[in-house]
Amino acid sequence: MSLLIVGSIALDTVFTPFGKREDILGGSTVYTSMASKNFCQTNIVGVVGEDFPKEHIELLKSNDIDTEGMEIVPGKTFRWKGVYNDLNRAETLDTQLNVFAEFNPRIPENYKKCNYVFLGNIDPVLQLRVLVQMQDPKVTACDTMNFWISGNKDALLKVIKKVDILFINEEEIKMLINESNIYQAAEIALSFGPKIVVIKCGEHGSVCIGDNFIFFAPVYPVKKAVDPTGAGDSFAGGFMGYLTRKDNFDKDTIRNAMIYGTIMASFCVESFSLERVKDLTFEMIEIRKEKIRESVIF
Amino acid sequence: MSLLIVGSIALDTVFTPFGKREDILGGSTVYTSMASKNFCQTNIVGVVGEDFPKEHIELLKSNDIDTEGMEIVPGKTFRWKGVYNDLNRAETLDTQLNVFAEFNPRIPENYKKCNYVFLGNIDPVLQLRVLVQMQDPKVTACDTMNFWISGNKDALLKVIKKVDILFINEEEIKMLINESNIYQAAEIALSFGPKIVVIKCGEHGSVCIGDNFIFFAPVYPVKKAVDPTGAGDSFAGGFMGYLTRKDNFDKDTIRNAMIYGTIMASFCVESFSLERVKDLTFEMIEIRKEKIRESVIF
Repeated sequence: MSLLIVGSIALDTVFTPFGKREDILGGSTVYTSMASKNFCQTNIVGVVGEDFPKEHIELLKSNDIDTEGMEIVPGKTFRWKGVYNDLNRAETLDTQLNVFAEFNPRIPENYKKCNYVFLGNIDPVLQLRVLVQMQDPKVTACDTMNFWISGNKDALLKVIKKVDILFINEEEIKMLINESNIYQAAEIALSFGPKIVVIKCGEHGSVCIGDNFIFFAPVYPVKKAVDPTGAGDSFAGGFMGYLTRKDNFDKDTIRNAMIYGTIMASFCVESFSLERVKDLTFEMIEIRKEKIRESVIF
Repeated sequence: MSLLIVGSIALDTVFTPFGKREDILGGSTVYTSMASKNFCQTNIVGVVGEDFPKEHIELLKSNDIDTEGMEIVPGKTFRWKGVYNDLNRAETLDTQLNVFAEFNPRIPENYKKCNYVFLGNIDPVLQLRVLVQMQDPKVTACDTMNFWISGNKDALLKVIKKVDILFINEEEIKMLINESNIYQAAEIALSFGPKIVVIKCGEHGSVCIGDNFIFFAPVYPVKKAVDPTGAGDSFAGGFMGYLTRKDNFDKDTIRNAMIYGTIMASFCVESFSLERVKDLTFEMIEIRKEKIRESVIF
C-alpha cells in the first residue's frame, strides 16, 4: 500500500518566542511526508525552484520518500514568512508564491495507483486536478485553510464532496459552515459527502466525527513547544500514514490514526522545521502512544 | 462520608437561543448539590430571602440534600440575569446581590466533620471563613471566577494555597496566572499549593493536572445544549460527589471523578435550571460513561 501526498514545498522564515529561523525547509508536502514515512511508502508531488537546496531533496530521499513527483523548475522556491506571538496563532508577514504560482500537479504514472491520497492545503482547483488523475484510490483526504474558504469556496466544496476525509481546524470549520458549534458544523460538513471530518483544535487536541461515530484525541503535552509550523500537516501525515499501513478505514483504525496523528504533531512542534522529526524511531512514537493512553483511560 | 457545599443560591433569569426563563432556581450551591447527591450524602450552606419559593427547598430536601445550613433571612434572594448569544459565553445583564451581600457562612455543628468540602464561586474571604470552621477535612476544593481574580486576588491566592483542588475555567486560569498556555499556567497554579488543578474548557472538555499526572476528559456531545448555566458547578458536583462516595483521592478515583463531572455537566446543559437533572437515575449516568469510554479508547 502506498500514499500520495500533494501540496506545497516551501522555504519558511519563522519567528517564535523561542527564536528565529530563515529559509528553513517547510511546506505541507514536506511535513506530511516526513510524518507518514514512519508508517508507509510515501510518494510526493510538489514544485520547487532552482534555488532549492539539494540537501533538502537528499533528506527526503534518505527517508525513503519517493520524490519522482517533485518538479524543479526555473525560478525561486515558494517562501512563507510568519510570526507566532503566542504559539496558538501564526501571523503571516510575507508570502512569495514564486514557482508555486504556476504549480500544476502532474501525477507520475506509477503514483496513479496509490490507494491512499492526501491533498495538502493548496488551491482547491489543483486538488480537483489531482483527483481526476488518480485510478480509483481507496481513501482520499484533503486539508484546506481560511484563504481558500474565503477565496474559492465553490471549488473547495467540490473537493469536500469528493473526498473521504476532511482535515480542518476549528476556526476554519466555523468559517466554512458559518456555525459556531464545532459538532454541529461537523454534522453539516458530513452532509456534503466526506465519511469523516477531523477537526484540529490546537492545544485542545482533535476530534473525529463520522456517522454515529465520535473520537477525541487529547493533545500530547510536550515539555516545550518551539514552533507550531507544520503541526497540522504532521498530524495528517501520521493519520494517513497509519491508514495506509493498515490498509483499512474502519473505526478502530481511525481511532489509532488519530493518536498517531497527535504524536507526529507533538514531535513536530518541539523544534523548528524537521530538526526533531527527522531522527524519530518507531519506539519513540510508541512511547508517546502509551503516555496518551494513560492520559485518557479510566 | 459526606460532602459540604458552600456557595450561592439564586433566582436566575436566562436568555439563550432556545428561549427565556425568569426567576428559575440556580446558583452554585444548587447546581453542585443536585449533581453530587447522586453519589454521596450532601450538605449545603447558603442564604436566601423570604421570597424564595418553598417548592425549591422541597426539591432539595426530596433529593436527600441536607438543607440545615440554608438560612432564610429577611429581604430578597440573590438574582442574576444573563444572556447567551452563543452557548460558549454568558453576558451578565444584571446582578442583584440582595441578601447575598451580607452572606456570612455559618457551618452547622454536624457539618463541621464533613470529610469533603467544596467552596463554590463566592468571595474568597468567605471561602476562607468556611475553611477555618471545618474540623480537618480530608479533601477541600474551590471554584472561582474572573470577578474575584480581578477584584480580590490576594484573598483568592490564600484560598488556593489551602485547598487540595482548584476548579477553574480556561480563561480564568490564563487571567489568574497571566500565562496563555493552560498547561504552563496549571504548573504555576500547582506551585501555589493545590494537589490538582481541574481546568474546564467548555466544548473542548476538561483537563486535570497534578504532579506528574495529566488526565483529559472529552466533552459529552449532547444532542441539544439549551442552557449552559450551572455546567461548571454540575461538573464539580459530579467530581466531588464521586470522590466522597469512594472516600479516596488517588489517580484512578480522580480519573473517574473527571468523567462523572463531565456527565453531570452534560445533563445540566440539556435544559434550563434543573429540569433535566432532577429526574436522573444512576443507570442514565452510567450509560453516558460507556459512551464517553467509546469516544476515547483506542
